[in-house]
Amino acid sequence: MTQRKLKYGQVGGGQGAFIGAVHRHAMALDGLYELTAGALSSSPERSRASGAALGLADSRNYPSWEAMLEGELKLPVGERIDLVNIVTPNHLHYPVAKAFAEAGFHVVCDKPLVHTSAQALGLLETVERSDVIFGVTHNYTGYPMIRHAREMVRSGQLGELRKVIVEYSQGWLATKLEDTDHKQAGWRSDPARSGIVGAVGDIGTHCENLMSAVTDLRLEAICADLTSFVPGRVLDDDANILLRFHGGAKGVLHCSQIQTGLENDLRLRVHGSLGSISWCQENPNYLEFTPLTGAKQILTRGSDYLCDAAKKASRLPAGHPEAFIEAFANVYVGVAEAIHAKLEVRELQPLEGDFPTLEDGVRGVRFIEKTVESSKSTQKWTAF
Amino acid sequence: MTQRKLKYGQVGGGQGAFIGAVHRHAMALDGLYELTAGALSSSPERSRASGAALGLADSRNYPSWEAMLEGELKLPVGERIDLVNIVTPNHLHYPVAKAFAEAGFHVVCDKPLVHTSAQALGLLETVERSDVIFGVTHNYTGYPMIRHAREMVRSGQLGELRKVIVEYSQGWLATKLEDTDHKQAGWRSDPARSGIVGAVGDIGTHCENLMSAVTDLRLEAICADLTSFVPGRVLDDDANILLRFHGGAKGVLHCSQIQTGLENDLRLRVHGSLGSISWCQENPNYLEFTPLTGAKQILTRGSDYLCDAAKKASRLPAGHPEAFIEAFANVYVGVAEAIHAKLEVRELQPLEGDFPTLEDGVRGVRFIEKTVESSKSTQKWTAF
Amino acid sequence: MTQRKLKYGQVGGGQGAFIGAVHRHAMALDGLYELTAGALSSSPERSRASGAALGLADSRNYPSWEAMLEGELKLPVGERIDLVNIVTPNHLHYPVAKAFAEAGFHVVCDKPLVHTSAQALGLLETVERSDVIFGVTHNYTGYPMIRHAREMVRSGQLGELRKVIVEYSQGWLATKLEDTDHKQAGWRSDPARSGIVGAVGDIGTHCENLMSAVTDLRLEAICADLTSFVPGRVLDDDANILLRFHGGAKGVLHCSQIQTGLENDLRLRVHGSLGSISWCQENPNYLEFTPLTGAKQILTRGSDYLCDAAKKASRLPAGHPEAFIEAFANVYVGVAEAIHAKLEVRELQPLEGDFPTLEDGVRGVRFIEKTVESSKSTQKWTAF
Amino acid sequence: MTQRKLKYGQVGGGQGAFIGAVHRHAMALDGLYELTAGALSSSPERSRASGAALGLADSRNYPSWEAMLEGELKLPVGERIDLVNIVTPNHLHYPVAKAFAEAGFHVVCDKPLVHTSAQALGLLETVERSDVIFGVTHNYTGYPMIRHAREMVRSGQLGELRKVIVEYSQGWLATKLEDTDHKQAGWRSDPARSGIVGAVGDIGTHCENLMSAVTDLRLEAICADLTSFVPGRVLDDDANILLRFHGGAKGVLHCSQIQTGLENDLRLRVHGSLGSISWCQENPNYLEFTPLTGAKQILTRGSDYLCDAAKKASRLPAGHPEAFIEAFANVYVGVAEAIHAKLEVRELQPLEGDFPTLEDGVRGVRFIEKTVESSKSTQKWTAF
Repeated sequence: MTQRKLKYGQVGGGQGAFIGAVHRHAMALDGLYELTAGALSSSPERSRASGAALGLADSRNYPSWEAMLEGELKLPVGERIDLVNIVTPNHLHYPVAKAFAEAGFHVVCDKPLVHTSAQALGLLETVERSDVIFGVTHNYTGYPMIRHAREMVRSGQLGELRKVIVEYSQGWLATKLEDTDHKQAGWRSDPARSGIVGAVGDIGTHCENLMSAVTDLRLEAICADLTSFVPGRVLDDDANILLRFHGGAKGVLHCSQIQTGLENDLRLRVHGSLGSISWCQENPNYLEFTPLTGAKQILTRGSDYLCDAAKKASRLPAGHPEAFIEAFANVYVGVAEAIHAKLEVRELQPLEGDFPTLEDGVRGVRFIEKTVESSKSTQKWTAF
Repeated sequence: MTQRKLKYGQVGGGQGAFIGAVHRHAMALDGLYELTAGALSSSPERSRASGAALGLADSRNYPSWEAMLEGELKLPVGERIDLVNIVTPNHLHYPVAKAFAEAGFHVVCDKPLVHTSAQALGLLETVERSDVIFGVTHNYTGYPMIRHAREMVRSGQLGELRKVIVEYSQGWLATKLEDTDHKQAGWRSDPARSGIVGAVGDIGTHCENLMSAVTDLRLEAICADLTSFVPGRVLDDDANILLRFHGGAKGVLHCSQIQTGLENDLRLRVHGSLGSISWCQENPNYLEFTPLTGAKQILTRGSDYLCDAAKKASRLPAGHPEAFIEAFANVYVGVAEAIHAKLEVRELQPLEGDFPTLEDGVRGVRFIEKTVESSKSTQKWTAF
Repeated sequence: MTQRKLKYGQVGGGQGAFIGAVHRHAMALDGLYELTAGALSSSPERSRASGAALGLADSRNYPSWEAMLEGELKLPVGERIDLVNIVTPNHLHYPVAKAFAEAGFHVVCDKPLVHTSAQALGLLETVERSDVIFGVTHNYTGYPMIRHAREMVRSGQLGELRKVIVEYSQGWLATKLEDTDHKQAGWRSDPARSGIVGAVGDIGTHCENLMSAVTDLRLEAICADLTSFVPGRVLDDDANILLRFHGGAKGVLHCSQIQTGLENDLRLRVHGSLGSISWCQENPNYLEFTPLTGAKQILTRGSDYLCDAAKKASRLPAGHPEAFIEAFANVYVGVAEAIHAKLEVRELQPLEGDFPTLEDGVRGVRFIEKTVESSKSTQKWTAF
Repeated sequence: MTQRKLKYGQVGGGQGAFIGAVHRHAMALDGLYELTAGALSSSPERSRASGAALGLADSRNYPSWEAMLEGELKLPVGERIDLVNIVTPNHLHYPVAKAFAEAGFHVVCDKPLVHTSAQALGLLETVERSDVIFGVTHNYTGYPMIRHAREMVRSGQLGELRKVIVEYSQGWLATKLEDTDHKQAGWRSDPARSGIVGAVGDIGTHCENLMSAVTDLRLEAICADLTSFVPGRVLDDDANILLRFHGGAKGVLHCSQIQTGLENDLRLRVHGSLGSISWCQENPNYLEFTPLTGAKQILTRGSDYLCDAAKKASRLPAGHPEAFIEAFANVYVGVAEAIHAKLEVRELQPLEGDFPTLEDGVRGVRFIEKTVESSKSTQKWTAF
């Protein structure tokens, strides 16, 4: 059952950008997508230059996302892009996603989804009306061992969940990098483009998504303390948050971009009455499992004993490590399955369509707003 | 400059106890102490049997701590024990310590110091009046790499401190072990003997002491969430705490005894403007240092490049691991130095007398009280 | 400077194969290649079915490699594949590579190159005559940290090299897997398809290539002990080899496929008069460096302080792990650069064309032959 | 059942020595021994000064080992030392051990036992005749996880053993340290004191003992390549050795003191048909176990699931690390049990008397001689 490659148009991701190229690698990896159109920068000139360097046909190498939308809609349906891939700074997520979704294009949008819950809910309504597929690249849930962790929780191997610790430690903003010409630092620390949060939006939302995806626990209340450590920085570069979940579990979420010298140290620990699991993104092929009795186990990606979802998300045998791009690509595999099922007017099969959805994105925006609300409050608990 | 072995009497530590034997190993290791007297159990019979098994002379093998105090005072000064070593459940720390200190004996007391700040301050007054040496076995500060971490902070290698994360993860109380005949679980979960806290007293105070010893930061306010996860348990078995320090640093302290399958996973991370350090107790011979620029470094115990305090606290070359008992013994080395200096009526030399003091113990009791107060409060911040 | 995608035809890699898909992922990752033709299996039916599943056009979906060669040669030069990618069992490497190279196609061939040195030298002659690019997928040299290791040696950071330890530990053939229908185990344990060696060809040659690439040391003599541990197995599943290099360095190479439970544990250690390095393939983003004095350093992929070759081989910032497929793709980046330079009739630029060559493959075949010769000899040293 | 402390006299271990103090710590740890006499240095003055600093009574603080032997024999039997502890450079092991054993004293001697097999066998005869206890401090076998590894082999959990890899990597002799006043480097590199080997005697014999103790495999033949890398050094500072065991298992032993920057990296891997184990001395509380099927397990010291011998060798719960001195002390626990059993004229109980014996020492000397013989031979295999 050969399926044609899906055609995508990328918005953002031009010269000097970081994450756009990651999306392109991830979409290329399994041969499921082809880059067909682009509006790769906010500057028409850089946009066109970037597209040319990537080999885009002139007719699909647009100076702006509005031009891309207009241009694609003029093409016969069969020639149009299937989906738009939004990898711009945060402030553009909303208008681009809304416009393309309204026009019937499928969407994959980077995180955090949008700036406000009002936007998020508006987008949700649009997408439901348009009946398009909408993925949000909370890419860390694409790791096979995270999918196995999720299955261990679901199947009860950890018993009743009690404690969750999720942390994301970076150090790249330990100095005022935004005062240099560092493009990533620039927009992330600018409220106009980043939104009401800095680190919380950039990496805190990954924490929220990762713990939610694995545990399916829902926040009841949070208690947050946000800080901007680097003098002159407007948005938070550090967050410490106490968590209370419906059902009685508790937790801690902390994230920071001023933990000097650290790289991308995202960790998740989940503790239940029957066992605990621990996972570190920087060495992602392993999942530690400590049962109530007996020896600690190191579960490895690619092993026979893993769940089907983890096996499906692997390309290589155990010991041949997979990593960030492969996990990212797994999100795109799920999106492709969902789009193909829609094209073929059929239901998703078991294990298909495993990717973070618009609902995840909406909840992430809520997490941002509640974190800021809690951080400003003198009350301990802010209901979620 | 040979010094005679110091004679000690141990209160607690008899058959079935855990930590008493650790103290004895630690005190034996360097040949600085000899066990001379004991009141090793709350039961006179078990006390005497335990003492006999340890080879105590009949005349110094007491049925109770009161008898030991009385008996020792009857001996000529030169024959008396030099110090009492208190390794009982928490509720006995206060009366024993107070009585022996008042009588002029030096004291080494296990942690948490006492049940209340009133007791703690009373004890402080007694000790100042009696002018005796008083050590509290917050043993983790005895690790050489912790002493080097302290020196890195003091000497400014980490720059201005911003974030501290300290955590202590255990799983041994993930079930209701106190309903079995497990002696350690029994008294630790009994308010009459443990005090107003469970995990916070047993391991949370170690966190507080460790971070304070390394960073010298002082708490300004805390926000605590204590939980008793195991049904029927009265005292906390889990704590999540946000920290604010004087001067603007922030932090997180979490500790738990229900992180199923975990052993004794105490970790400290300190992040400053110029670098970060990370240390794990379960593999204690290493200290990770990530500077603002350049490669991560793994500093190892026994190395030439370490500070004098770390070198002094080592007995073996690098690669020949030292561990828990050696760190514990380092506390006792400091105590012995302080006692000998007092005996010789001289000042401590540089690097001598490096051990957790009564002031540390007093602050630990305050930490317990403030944690409970904060946990009950609906206000976010409880001033420390 | 946009370059067209190179068109490749794959020989082998059909349904049930392992490494063919890895090559396809690696070639897709950076958008440098497109799969245009295939002769994916030794069975015409499975070959055609495999090609259809991969979306090959019928006209380029060949029943055999001979048909592919004939078919492609009939096409106008601009439509032909640029290169052939040989991912068959070992015995087909020689005829396919020779035929395509003679016909002027560039070649990327899996390892070990061919069965005999006679074949290897014949192929070398052919390739020199045809002036085609020829890459051998000793993929582990594509890891960025291996390229940095190589640079550390070249630039003298390790001083004079003294000792090299390279080892490759697998456990997947600890039972007689070839008696099941396990395709990989089947041909690897069959002399007709695998050649005169089993483990030595499959993984020992990777060891030889890795150490040679990093150190540039040349073997002077070896002393090998090959074993077939699993009863009934004809070829070696284990090898222990002492190494002597020109210039006085010594070493150990051991590899095995019967180290029960192990996955793909390839490790390299190089020790010089000024420092040592250590690298493990299963966690490949890190390189340990222990200098003569000072602390151990953990160098991480993506860091500023790495050499240009390592930086060029990275797609992601530090802490966002890359792994096996990315390293594999780095080999293909180098091949693409070499082919494009040839197409453009220009010299390679600095850092371009970094891939294992036919000379590496030839030396690998010699390593196989000398290992077998040594293993049979009663003399200690067999000249290399 | 209180037992009196055993009285020991130490030969060697004075000021400037390294290992003597380790023995004293280890003997003190469990309160089983007391230092009663000493001849701590080859110089009478330094010997007396060292003894005084350790608090030896003048009458037992001897200027030489001969004086100690004579002096102790003059004392009433009940006052004499029970055992002599020999921690001198290698060349003194033989005369001291022989003289004290002949006189009826128990002996604990450091390794390598003596210089020649003739001496070793002579000593064996003496000890059998005198019927004294004789321990050799191959201390690494005292680690609890090594005792568990031994039990896993014995009980068949690894199945039939196939491959053993043992390695000991140090870097402290990467420069010509013996040309400074470094006492340890001095005698170890001097044939008159060290014997016919350098690294092979100092650390290679530990490798041999460790693998033999765990596996009970017996060497059939070896193939050794010894090197002196540092210019001007007479004895080997590096060894690579292929191993063949009776019964068909194979292995590799390599050890070195020129692996720049490495500390005390002793590792053992044992691979059987049903599973593999791996242990690293620098983090000794853990034993990796990879079974034929299922996840890798990390066994930890202090755990319930360990064998009785491992449990007996532990003083602390899991997660409270023990290390080098504790392992060393375990050897001395076994020696004390054997001496007490002899004093009480009874058989050893199960688990008692677990220490490396004179037979281990004799085999270690044979290992040294055979390694040198093999290294000089042009034949591949030298029968063991």
